[in-house]
Amino acid sequence: MAITLYDLAAAEEDRRFSPYVWRTKMALKHKGLEFETVPWRFTEKDAIAFANSKTVPVIKDGDTAVADSWNIAVYLDQAYPSRPGLFAGTEARLLCEFFNQWAARTVVTSLFKVILLDIFERIHEKDKAYFRESREKRFGMTLEQWAADPQRKLAEFRGALEPVRPILVQNPFLSGNGPGYADYILFGAFQWARCMSPIRLIEPGDPIYPWRERMLDLWGGYARAAKGYPA
Amino acid sequence: MAITLYDLAAAEEDRRFSPYVWRTKMALKHKGLEFETVPWRFTEKDAIAFANSKTVPVIKDGDTAVADSWNIAVYLDQAYPSRPGLFAGTEARLLCEFFNQWAARTVVTSLFKVILLDIFERIHEKDKAYFRESREKRFGMTLEQWAADPQRKLAEFRGALEPVRPILVQNPFLSGNGPGYADYILFGAFQWARCMSPIRLIEPGDPIYPWRERMLDLWGGYARAAKGYPA
Repeated sequence: MAITLYDLAAAEEDRRFSPYVWRTKMALKHKGLEFETVPWRFTEKDAIAFANSKTVPVIKDGDTAVADSWNIAVYLDQAYPSRPGLFAGTEARLLCEFFNQWAARTVVTSLFKVILLDIFERIHEKDKAYFRESREKRFGMTLEQWAADPQRKLAEFRGALEPVRPILVQNPFLSGNGPGYADYILFGAFQWARCMSPIRLIEPGDPIYPWRERMLDLWGGYARAAKGYPA
Repeated sequence: MAITLYDLAAAEEDRRFSPYVWRTKMALKHKGLEFETVPWRFTEKDAIAFANSKTVPVIKDGDTAVADSWNIAVYLDQAYPSRPGLFAGTEARLLCEFFNQWAARTVVTSLFKVILLDIFERIHEKDKAYFRESREKRFGMTLEQWAADPQRKLAEFRGALEPVRPILVQNPFLSGNGPGYADYILFGAFQWARCMSPIRLIEPGDPIYPWRERMLDLWGGYARAAKGYPA
């Protein structure tokens, strides 16, 4: 039986933009597991209450419910050990967890400032008041103030990526010759932007650019086919 | 035949403080390899020219010379594959290389601002003019300006460590139940400070504190026995 994945949708139901759900989709593809997505909006808390969560991704795998992209990745490797691994052992998993912590604090935060108003424009009408109120409370300022000076914010995002560049100059993927969960963590952020914003995040001379192309090419262009803005 | 390690010394020859050489010492201990240290000062460039390097660590292993702490770690795992590994495979090595890049840009840089004047005070007289000139050129300001407002700098250092804390809350070491090269990367920074500065970098309530204690305890208290300031 296919796994059910609750997937954040914009106003258009087929525009699926959560950076965290993208990690889970890539992880499910990596493991070769069948899954069906259920479109979900920010305010539909009741629909995922069964998983004791207020945010997606949430998966339902038979009788098992798992919330949070990191927990889902760890669950998938434990539940399906004969499938390709997301983590090559304990040490790689812990260093990937560090990567996850780093990405949350730097990449995701700095990119959010760049694409925030593009996101706000494209989310469902019924989500807009909730989105504005919850984010303004978190930021301590208005959305417009948080997103001010976009050129500087874009430069900060590009600067935040500095520690991954030496790895991608020498390797096709952060995990080596093939992609692993660290690649999906970083790619989720890029796909979030690609789905919701026409902004050009990186230039072709950047070693991250061909890596992103390789990520978009995986599994017959799975992520490339998603509704978005090819930049 | 024992490996020779060129090791940065302060004015006192037995005060060995380089964060990068500490990584190498811990790596050599991890692999159970015999080594002898040669005290070296910043201005003794001729002594390590054989390795085509101007900085330490440099090792001489028979006819092989290797410079740079990262290169040495990779070399040791390749040259001594039957000894305990510093990296648990390719993916772990690449994620550790990312950790290394992150640490260089955040932990080492922010800690340097905290302990810079303590370092300057304790280095050899013959190194002082070189140290001041080279670092002031790199910083674009005087040492005193770079180190100004130490309480704010200390807070920034503690903040920079944020992504490692969730790992150390749940695991004895960054690499799992035993230490790996990521632990030695981070520990090198703490040992740099411990050797040269009486400042108290972290408090006992911080999950990093018991980890540092575990690192100091390794191999019969090898790093704890080094000349320094137990803070």
